[in-house]
Amino acid sequence: MGNAPKVALIGAGRMGQVHGRNAAGSPRFDLVSVVDAHAETAAALAAELGCAVAGQDEVLADPTIAAVLVATSTSTHLDVVLAALAAGKAVFCEKPLDLDLGRLRAHAAELSAPPAPLYVAFNKRFDPNFRALKPRIAAGEIGALESLTLISHDPAPPPPAFIPTSGGLFRDFSIHDFDMARWLLDEQPAELFAWASCLVDPAIAAAGDVDTARIVLRCASGKLCVISNTRRSGYGYDQRAEAYGSKGAILLGDERISTLETWTEAGALAAPIHPGFQARYAASYRAELDHFADVLAGTAPPLTAYAESVGASALAEAAARSIATGAPVRLAEA
Amino acid sequence: MGNAPKVALIGAGRMGQVHGRNAAGSPRFDLVSVVDAHAETAAALAAELGCAVAGQDEVLADPTIAAVLVATSTSTHLDVVLAALAAGKAVFCEKPLDLDLGRLRAHAAELSAPPAPLYVAFNKRFDPNFRALKPRIAAGEIGALESLTLISHDPAPPPPAFIPTSGGLFRDFSIHDFDMARWLLDEQPAELFAWASCLVDPAIAAAGDVDTARIVLRCASGKLCVISNTRRSGYGYDQRAEAYGSKGAILLGDERISTLETWTEAGALAAPIHPGFQARYAASYRAELDHFADVLAGTAPPLTAYAESVGASALAEAAARSIATGAPVRLAEA
Amino acid sequence: MGNAPKVALIGAGRMGQVHGRNAAGSPRFDLVSVVDAHAETAAALAAELGCAVAGQDEVLADPTIAAVLVATSTSTHLDVVLAALAAGKAVFCEKPLDLDLGRLRAHAAELSAPPAPLYVAFNKRFDPNFRALKPRIAAGEIGALESLTLISHDPAPPPPAFIPTSGGLFRDFSIHDFDMARWLLDEQPAELFAWASCLVDPAIAAAGDVDTARIVLRCASGKLCVISNTRRSGYGYDQRAEAYGSKGAILLGDERISTLETWTEAGALAAPIHPGFQARYAASYRAELDHFADVLAGTAPPLTAYAESVGASALAEAAARSIATGAPVRLAEA
Amino acid sequence: MGNAPKVALIGAGRMGQVHGRNAAGSPRFDLVSVVDAHAETAAALAAELGCAVAGQDEVLADPTIAAVLVATSTSTHLDVVLAALAAGKAVFCEKPLDLDLGRLRAHAAELSAPPAPLYVAFNKRFDPNFRALKPRIAAGEIGALESLTLISHDPAPPPPAFIPTSGGLFRDFSIHDFDMARWLLDEQPAELFAWASCLVDPAIAAAGDVDTARIVLRCASGKLCVISNTRRSGYGYDQRAEAYGSKGAILLGDERISTLETWTEAGALAAPIHPGFQARYAASYRAELDHFADVLAGTAPPLTAYAESVGASALAEAAARSIATGAPVRLAEA
Repeated sequence: MGNAPKVALIGAGRMGQVHGRNAAGSPRFDLVSVVDAHAETAAALAAELGCAVAGQDEVLADPTIAAVLVATSTSTHLDVVLAALAAGKAVFCEKPLDLDLGRLRAHAAELSAPPAPLYVAFNKRFDPNFRALKPRIAAGEIGALESLTLISHDPAPPPPAFIPTSGGLFRDFSIHDFDMARWLLDEQPAELFAWASCLVDPAIAAAGDVDTARIVLRCASGKLCVISNTRRSGYGYDQRAEAYGSKGAILLGDERISTLETWTEAGALAAPIHPGFQARYAASYRAELDHFADVLAGTAPPLTAYAESVGASALAEAAARSIATGAPVRLAEA
Repeated sequence: MGNAPKVALIGAGRMGQVHGRNAAGSPRFDLVSVVDAHAETAAALAAELGCAVAGQDEVLADPTIAAVLVATSTSTHLDVVLAALAAGKAVFCEKPLDLDLGRLRAHAAELSAPPAPLYVAFNKRFDPNFRALKPRIAAGEIGALESLTLISHDPAPPPPAFIPTSGGLFRDFSIHDFDMARWLLDEQPAELFAWASCLVDPAIAAAGDVDTARIVLRCASGKLCVISNTRRSGYGYDQRAEAYGSKGAILLGDERISTLETWTEAGALAAPIHPGFQARYAASYRAELDHFADVLAGTAPPLTAYAESVGASALAEAAARSIATGAPVRLAEA
Repeated sequence: MGNAPKVALIGAGRMGQVHGRNAAGSPRFDLVSVVDAHAETAAALAAELGCAVAGQDEVLADPTIAAVLVATSTSTHLDVVLAALAAGKAVFCEKPLDLDLGRLRAHAAELSAPPAPLYVAFNKRFDPNFRALKPRIAAGEIGALESLTLISHDPAPPPPAFIPTSGGLFRDFSIHDFDMARWLLDEQPAELFAWASCLVDPAIAAAGDVDTARIVLRCASGKLCVISNTRRSGYGYDQRAEAYGSKGAILLGDERISTLETWTEAGALAAPIHPGFQARYAASYRAELDHFADVLAGTAPPLTAYAESVGASALAEAAARSIATGAPVRLAEA
Repeated sequence: MGNAPKVALIGAGRMGQVHGRNAAGSPRFDLVSVVDAHAETAAALAAELGCAVAGQDEVLADPTIAAVLVATSTSTHLDVVLAALAAGKAVFCEKPLDLDLGRLRAHAAELSAPPAPLYVAFNKRFDPNFRALKPRIAAGEIGALESLTLISHDPAPPPPAFIPTSGGLFRDFSIHDFDMARWLLDEQPAELFAWASCLVDPAIAAAGDVDTARIVLRCASGKLCVISNTRRSGYGYDQRAEAYGSKGAILLGDERISTLETWTEAGALAAPIHPGFQARYAASYRAELDHFADVLAGTAPPLTAYAESVGASALAEAAARSIATGAPVRLAEA
């Protein structure tokens, strides 16, 4: 691995551990240090991955480090990214780039033409199933795409304490579906309407948020898209898509934890779907890191960066506005 | 069959043939005559079913005839039904009772407390799959119901000439889903929002109608429901439902024309779903007629009558209004 | 139904009731009488079906009766059939024609060129799934057929008292699979090997029979076929087939009682398969009777008659011999 | 990886590459050298994996090397294993240990109580699906196991030149199923019967081998097992199992390359199954190597070693004998 670029991980929490382990296990990266505001968190992960603990300034000042993986708490993403880009580091940033669309747009210049490559981690685009779906729609396998259904149901709600810092259901959770919708529709939605309820946990309502939503998007061409979200499914981590075209449909189903089926008088019980995102999207996290290696190698531009972040965030903002006003929201031209 | 009640069929078109054949094949009815404005149509069906041709007045005046099956063109349903009820005949009426909600309500008194039993044929309630779904939701098998998805996609659009007389997508087609939504949600929706496009056939747009729609319903309790409709699926007659609750979900899938799967290097090809409503809902048409036999025997009240017709039609009106205004529509208390 | 041929049902037990109800419900038959050795059994079914009770001699002597449906106990099938044919009646005989291959062959002349049409009810050939499978194999959809798997698993064993009169697992139960194998392989098997155990109920062993078997057939061309039988599956009435060819495979799966799936943390529970043959093969019983109507009308020869009975019985005999000798059995040229 | 045991790979062909890459990618091994009779093959793989090329004697003489991974051509497995064990190296040996059962038994003493741990790579035991199946049968989830079906169908036949060196279908191919049968039945089969044909490629027959087989096993308890093998399925790499018990069944299905389904008027096309063993069993190859790390660490005994090799090979011998004699073969007590 002598030739692999040196990288540092900034943020050693849940997603930092995912990306850190993948980087350490990949021959295409030389993970040299872990940064985290909590010294113990940094030390534990650094020990596991066989690398050093470092400070953020130290990392950004180190000319041998080519890139940083940013997985800090969401509210700090943008500051860390801007500092890293300014220091000339290529950046892999856990989504979203920022919860505040206005702030993002205020940095449009630095972020849309950054001094070093910027990849924003919309990992679902790297899931083998979604990745297979996109070209098949584009190739006209089902004729012209007419409507799209995206289903993202979490197995269980987050702890209530997370809600106030989350940005709300649309910025925190639906953001993946907004990116998927833009990508698969291949057209920026022109209008959005959303209805949402709090049915899962009253603490979520008390924090001013919702947990169950249906969002409808309409494109100028007439294409329609429905997004179905809930914070608690009761049956696992449900991630499906349905693309309806003029000549047929393609449905993307859930992966199951095994291919076993138990047949009894009660019926045929197929194995459960994955219980959470870690298992469901393990391959996508590895694949997006591999994509980032391509970006570092100069063989691919980042698939998702500033424009995609703004595009998805604009839909999240619109959803929040639709809920607040009870009316459909017209989206500005991108 | 000596004791079976004598019934007459009024309307020998597509649905009249379905109900007429089922009545002739059931030991619980003695189908004695067929009425149709077109003498040849009436004669052909009467010959096939081994019964007489008659006029409507003759049938209504015949004291030995206990009931009529009304399957005339939609615009005449209400007049025929009112005349038949006035003549003391029990009535089985193909849905909808009328396309005009105002007209329906104007006859609320006669229709909600009719002098003879009135059954309005929302046949999907008698489909074995939907019929199995309802009690399982009601029994709490998935906890509290939180959201519902109803999918009704036609295989191919009707001839353009049908559109102007159809009442439009919502009154003609979505009406079944509106009834299903009310039945399965077990709560009258409080608000409705709809977006629709014309993507299938420009002739439909030229006739002032739409062919592809997504409709969202919201109940006072917060329950959400999405209805997905298209006039042309490209893959058959798609009739599905998804009920999401606090403890899991129940999904109602499509029946297939056989259980064969062909395995090749391209994948595993399961048999097609039914190509149209006749095959898909054959069992439901028989079952609803059997229900009507129970109604005639006095052992069951009609499962769907005036109130259900008004409830479903009110949602269809609201959908049309939502499209016209681009805004959600609040539904009056039932 | 004035022109439908008059038929009589001989035998009003379990299968007699199935065929009697289907005949009474079909416009292509005029079921006029029911015969059964037990007067009460005959009377009950005759009352239900609205026809007369009669004696067998009376029926065979009645020149207005065109055909008889024979569903007596198996040991009497052949005598009744021979008498009916001698009386010039067309015969629909529940399978098997006789349990004793030698006896069957002794009547080869009368049975293979009978004075009136003889149909032996191998109903699985009329099941919509198996009926769809056959022409697809024949059309070369999977290239040349190379091997075949047939699975017939009963939900629960019969009462032990039935076993001694049954003819044993192979003549009573596997006989359907032997007929299927001959039909689908489109080649008379040249050799057979069987192993069987008694694992379900020791009373079956005490009666000298087995309840769990695997039978292998080999054709002169090298085609192989495995038959899997058990008297008790624990999960319903399992009826599947797998056809493997040079270019792929076709699998025939089980029908389920509904299309509902329940999704919980335990997995996705599909509805049970049918609990027994009556529900599973209801359509095939109607279809074979319809075929018999065609036979009576002279528009089709009987699909299965003496030759097919002898062919299937020869395999049953060979299976019994293989179990007895512990060795493969070579089949005589047909 | 400073503490990981040093290992060498002997054999850099197809399976050697699989195991070598897994060892190089695992933090639990320090792969230091690659041995292969063909210098270029060794050099290419060593370069890829960042380790040295070495000779076998050199490796066995190196006291710092704790273990060897043996993936040479089958005919040399046993000699290499015996030499490595004699040198005190722990051994991971690609299956089978040897094609000749007599030779294996001649070395029973050294192999059954080896001086260093010996693991023989029956990788299917480490597939997540098969690994989930075993404990569920053992836990009585389907009551007492009564019969078992194992299906292993290759996508396409090997080059004809491979056949004469392969040991034949049973020793080369069915060997995995024989191990599975022994493991899942949890009882050494008492008798075996096999029929096989050459239907795929006449060159296989010309080489004295068969390509399509059905093998039946019978245990003393009466349990039955059928193995279905073909060298060419026409639809991918088919690896299924069906376990039938007194209270139900568990079916192990094929993994598919994605969860996409395409719906058209032709039906619903699910994604293909894996095209070959590399993709299908990738996880099992990693898992068995991880198991070998446990063996080296002293935390687990080898799951499969000499006894399992002899057990599976004895069934392969019996199958070959059954084909030769046309009769069932009784197996010696293990």
